[in-house]
Amino acid sequence: MGMMKRILVDMDGVLADVYHRFFELHESETGSVLTFDDIIGLKEGEAFPGLARWVDTPGFFRTIPVMAGSQRVLKLLNEKFDIVVVSMATEFPASLTDKQLWLNDNFPFITWRQIVFCGNKNIIQADIMIDDHLKNLDNFKGETIMFIQPHNMNLKNTPHRRADSWEEIEKLLLS
Amino acid sequence: MGMMKRILVDMDGVLADVYHRFFELHESETGSVLTFDDIIGLKEGEAFPGLARWVDTPGFFRTIPVMAGSQRVLKLLNEKFDIVVVSMATEFPASLTDKQLWLNDNFPFITWRQIVFCGNKNIIQADIMIDDHLKNLDNFKGETIMFIQPHNMNLKNTPHRRADSWEEIEKLLLS
Repeated sequence: MGMMKRILVDMDGVLADVYHRFFELHESETGSVLTFDDIIGLKEGEAFPGLARWVDTPGFFRTIPVMAGSQRVLKLLNEKFDIVVVSMATEFPASLTDKQLWLNDNFPFITWRQIVFCGNKNIIQADIMIDDHLKNLDNFKGETIMFIQPHNMNLKNTPHRRADSWEEIEKLLLS
Repeated sequence: MGMMKRILVDMDGVLADVYHRFFELHESETGSVLTFDDIIGLKEGEAFPGLARWVDTPGFFRTIPVMAGSQRVLKLLNEKFDIVVVSMATEFPASLTDKQLWLNDNFPFITWRQIVFCGNKNIIQADIMIDDHLKNLDNFKGETIMFIQPHNMNLKNTPHRRADSWEEIEKLLLS
């Protein structure tokens, strides 16, 4: 493991398809259907007024859909890199147990030793970061890959490589 | 914060007086009373056969007594150092939410940004580590302080400074 490059892999918006659930909840609570075009460039909390309440509800993170392709590609990456899944989760105590159980269910090849829940990703030593939020990417000292989600889709002048899908991450890191 | 030295502060056996609860549970389950003398030098799991079951029970970490002096001294340290509370907790999913709520209750001056739950403390960058377990202390690159608990009391030939109490930590770091 000592010679492997360490990759920090974010959960929400990277492994966990939170937007999928946000759209569903918004529709069920308001009766109005939002599309990607409606919310491109908006922060998550601007796009979905219910968000702060949803993410603080026990059970919310237990059943989020898995991001397409993430299980297959992360399993491949796990053979060549020192993978650490890192989530900013300590703001929401109820989310912690839900997130760990979700990872155990959906990414059983990621052991408990490879998981971090924290309030500041910049204290973790690593070589590569895969994340959707500039607050994490901009302060990271290694290589950065910005996973594209509606809130960051319009950000063009960043130093971060972009990946629209896990297939693109596979091309960037495994080809 | 950039100029402050970062201290990693362990929870179990340092902030949380887990032995206090271990003695209580052992007595209530077996009817026999253990004393410190009975278990000095034994690993926690050797001293308390019920331990593996106890720590995996939801609620166990929610009501652990606070280590004597830890609230007062950690509050003082929090003004002079970049404090990060770090617990190896991802092995036990149910413990995560309990531990976060326990910290919020008992150490309200520690914000969610200063908390890490992980499976490997050696990926976190810091200057000083306060911990009771050699598995964490021996691999840490900075200054180490071994908080004395029954399982490590007899370990004499370690490179780590020893602290028998939070008053001693206060002397080591604040005088």
